[in-house]
Amino acid sequence: MSAGRAVAHERAEPAAPVDASAPGVRAGSLAEADLLLDRADVLATHSASPTGIERVYLSPEHARVHEVVGAWMRDAGLRTWQDAAGNLCGRLEGERDGLPALLLGSHLDTVPGAGRYDGILGVLAAVAVAARVAPGTLPFALEVVAFGDEEGTRFGTTLLGSRALAGTWDPAWGALTDRDGVTLADAARAFGLDPARITEAARAPGSLVGYLEAHIEQGPLLEEAGRALGLVTSIAAARRFELTLTGEARHCATPWHRRRDALTGAAEAVLTVERVARARGCPATVGRIEASPGAVNVIPGIATFSLDLRAPSDAERDTTWDVLRAELERVAADRGLVLQVVPTHEAPAVHCAPRLQDALRAGVAATGDPDAPELFSVAGHDTMAVAAVTDVAMLFVRCAGGISHHADESVTRADVAATIDALHAAVLALAERPA
Amino acid sequence: MSAGRAVAHERAEPAAPVDASAPGVRAGSLAEADLLLDRADVLATHSASPTGIERVYLSPEHARVHEVVGAWMRDAGLRTWQDAAGNLCGRLEGERDGLPALLLGSHLDTVPGAGRYDGILGVLAAVAVAARVAPGTLPFALEVVAFGDEEGTRFGTTLLGSRALAGTWDPAWGALTDRDGVTLADAARAFGLDPARITEAARAPGSLVGYLEAHIEQGPLLEEAGRALGLVTSIAAARRFELTLTGEARHCATPWHRRRDALTGAAEAVLTVERVARARGCPATVGRIEASPGAVNVIPGIATFSLDLRAPSDAERDTTWDVLRAELERVAADRGLVLQVVPTHEAPAVHCAPRLQDALRAGVAATGDPDAPELFSVAGHDTMAVAAVTDVAMLFVRCAGGISHHADESVTRADVAATIDALHAAVLALAERPA
Repeated sequence: MSAGRAVAHERAEPAAPVDASAPGVRAGSLAEADLLLDRADVLATHSASPTGIERVYLSPEHARVHEVVGAWMRDAGLRTWQDAAGNLCGRLEGERDGLPALLLGSHLDTVPGAGRYDGILGVLAAVAVAARVAPGTLPFALEVVAFGDEEGTRFGTTLLGSRALAGTWDPAWGALTDRDGVTLADAARAFGLDPARITEAARAPGSLVGYLEAHIEQGPLLEEAGRALGLVTSIAAARRFELTLTGEARHCATPWHRRRDALTGAAEAVLTVERVARARGCPATVGRIEASPGAVNVIPGIATFSLDLRAPSDAERDTTWDVLRAELERVAADRGLVLQVVPTHEAPAVHCAPRLQDALRAGVAATGDPDAPELFSVAGHDTMAVAAVTDVAMLFVRCAGGISHHADESVTRADVAATIDALHAAVLALAERPA
Repeated sequence: MSAGRAVAHERAEPAAPVDASAPGVRAGSLAEADLLLDRADVLATHSASPTGIERVYLSPEHARVHEVVGAWMRDAGLRTWQDAAGNLCGRLEGERDGLPALLLGSHLDTVPGAGRYDGILGVLAAVAVAARVAPGTLPFALEVVAFGDEEGTRFGTTLLGSRALAGTWDPAWGALTDRDGVTLADAARAFGLDPARITEAARAPGSLVGYLEAHIEQGPLLEEAGRALGLVTSIAAARRFELTLTGEARHCATPWHRRRDALTGAAEAVLTVERVARARGCPATVGRIEASPGAVNVIPGIATFSLDLRAPSDAERDTTWDVLRAELERVAADRGLVLQVVPTHEAPAVHCAPRLQDALRAGVAATGDPDAPELFSVAGHDTMAVAAVTDVAMLFVRCAGGISHHADESVTRADVAATIDALHAAVLALAERPA
């Protein structure tokens, strides 16, 4: 870490009223950052797992953090409610009641073994910003939205909370099941929701001014560049596939020339993904693999693996996939294997609105960085879903080593203070030029 | 298939009294082969699975096939008993009672999704040979042994039955557990055995003349050579390892240059195993692989995979492993990964006794093939374990496409008849020259 307090690593370090390692940051902002970090620690205790953070959509943990975060929202002067999809909302009226709202937010759900800041930071920074704003002072309402599902951990489909708000909820999702066979509809009922009315969480486009989200970068580029904050220009286009290679399960006595080993084929496929996608500048990940029958002395007849492919634009994504698929077909053919491709997910690139990017740029400038670096977001975010109903923009926050989805996820006190300051300044910049 | 009836594929084809596709095979032997094949079909019905053959050590299916095969042994004139380790034995006395015994045998347990002949063929051929021998006519006793565990499917340790007979049972094995957490000791008790007395299954070396085993080749070499039977010269030296590569679990947004992806490392390792072992003529198999945490959008931090390595001799096996390990260390180092190697199994090569090989060669000659081809067995067999207590030799039987450990496992009627004839003739050749 180049500066500041590495929060997750050094909890014992006492907070100084003015932080010598964060020159230029106001002592008041640092105090707000300390409060935010303490709150993130509190949320980390609401977990399904005793050994790490795991908090999925519509779970008892989800309900408990709504109580906690709802109280913090009310402390910040917001009127709170839980929407029909299980998103927690808090609203501060503007110059008059009922004005269209600028949304600030992120998500409260986590993957298994999560860190403390992915999603959480954006929600808590939004609460901190709202706490600075006096009611009746802005030319729009200010709303904080804490989405209930971004990660998709429980039901396998991501962005459920933000898609409900954006009006793109598919009623068929009520039949999605978790690993225990519980349907989303039943889980919604247990959470106190009416599954038939989830679509009522949809906001009307005219009721919104836009959406701003602060989020840890989940990558190392800001850290490598020595910058606290960055502007997201677009969120990656993504496609996911389940790929299956089928050969022949054979006893390990089978001579080399007679083998049709699905796993050696999959190994070549994994390295082909790495070679092709890397050369084209597209992130690609094989996160899951399984060989069947899975006995130590049987040549695998079937190998199944996942592929997650991202690119800055839809066209780059699709061209890369076309190249990759042709190479994978060749790998299969050379080894006497059959390749089966099942698409499991597709998302277009989402481009951030220039007027909101300008506001965030002004916000970052207010923290002393007049030329905020621009990044493209490889990871998906609620911002992607919300873009279906209103303009969006996103602020990336430096995180230690780019680590995310892991207990070592870490941000500095100074960077958190800068996040609150930048987001607040962006809100004020929009208030100067509301549309 | 070049000749005869492909049993598992063509059950509907009527058996002719004399098989035109098997010239030179006696009609009587073909009738015995038909009986054997019918018996293999009966044993295939005793399975833990409704959709395939699965019969593990000390299971209810194991007990049921002992009743069935015991009755067939008694029909063949044998006195039967179940030994202290749950092996089924049948004995025919020689010229006088209590003479040392020539053992004929193989195993009755199976892997999941097994074929009908792996192990079974050797037991049933031994019963068929015994049925041809009149009591009191040989200068040794003849025993058929049906081992209860060769595959090691249930408790993860192979050759439990034959190691008990050979006196190499380790009392610590009572604490081995199956996937349901049942200990071997409890399973033995449920089977009617006393786990404290399993070691009493050990035979005294002086009580034995030798051990002959007929077994399907589980490879395609006899078929490719157009030969029904082959002589095994040695059984492969084997080593097994569990290999773990550890990198860093990271969000898929991590740029390529910052990744330490354990699964791409494992993919390179799998291809390295293939390249190195193939070039050195050693069979090697990666049958299991797992990537952790196993989420589609997380770069795997840990990849674990199995390695099964075989060679014709201990020296070739160990040299190949040394080369391979050095290459795998290089793969790990190049990718910033840590390689961990856990040996899980090691077996020396077992060489067949020349005098027993000579008897089997004479046996095969009696079927009309005066110069039986010699093979080295890649797969492990009960013969390996029995070699600890007496001389051993092995006969390989052609199987369709080399397929084994699969429902498509298949042998021809003519080859089964030749197996019975050759094994019988080998017994008679040993009777001419007992030691």
